[in-house]
Amino acid sequence: MERFDRTQARTWLSTAVEEARAGLAEGGIPIGAALYAPDGTLLGRGHNRRVQDGDPSTHAETAAFRDAGRQGSYRGTTMVTTLSPCWYCSGLVRQFGISRVVVGEAETFHGGHDWLAEHGVEIVLLDDAECVAMMRDFVRENPALWNEDIGE
Amino acid sequence: MERFDRTQARTWLSTAVEEARAGLAEGGIPIGAALYAPDGTLLGRGHNRRVQDGDPSTHAETAAFRDAGRQGSYRGTTMVTTLSPCWYCSGLVRQFGISRVVVGEAETFHGGHDWLAEHGVEIVLLDDAECVAMMRDFVRENPALWNEDIGE
Repeated sequence: MERFDRTQARTWLSTAVEEARAGLAEGGIPIGAALYAPDGTLLGRGHNRRVQDGDPSTHAETAAFRDAGRQGSYRGTTMVTTLSPCWYCSGLVRQFGISRVVVGEAETFHGGHDWLAEHGVEIVLLDDAECVAMMRDFVRENPALWNEDIGE
Repeated sequence: MERFDRTQARTWLSTAVEEARAGLAEGGIPIGAALYAPDGTLLGRGHNRRVQDGDPSTHAETAAFRDAGRQGSYRGTTMVTTLSPCWYCSGLVRQFGISRVVVGEAETFHGGHDWLAEHGVEIVLLDDAECVAMMRDFVRENPALWNEDIGE
């Protein structure tokens, strides 16, 4: 399989980073995501809303997925997220047949992206320094909130 | 481990079945769920809302989870669902450490409940005839909608 263009991946990641920053500015957990169509159209975007809405079900990836509305097929789509997806969000990607996940970083949290790769999802891990710094600072200052968000 | 009381499981399943019936009456996909606390308190309940809200992220289990609001811990809780949970909802259960899943049936759709069992979640499979009939009839009459809901 042809490797996905990392310059494209970084451009798309910037949308997810904007979402993460927006979440942080609202007093929330700074994780953002975006769903892109095979032709590069932005289908949906969103960020974690546990704090803002008191809603534990809205992780960044589920927010972007919801924002995209009903899609007939997810074949060829790309989920871009600032952080390695947890089991909940990895399950979303697998169930709906999203083809690729661009991961901002997996250093502060290692989710289910290896499992997705085993099941045929293309993973593009960017090791983005801003994503790492944003989560590292947040987790250091809000450890209880972060543990709540990942069920620990 | 002591086996969970199946009479209790059937009582709890009736809440999920009520939700599934409500979804069907609204023109939606008839899958319902409920989240119970260790002491038997009903924490949240809900049903699939793909059709009603145009929201593909609201499966029965995620609806019940959202309805329960922010919980400090899911240790000892039980997710009751009329149908074997898909990967998305199985990922939810694993990520948040929900201890037990009561499954109405896994005949019309076999989701991730074996995977959950491998990861320490107690699975109580009830083979409930009403749950089977409700889904079998629905899938026969709405195959495209059902395939959309499971990403096929």
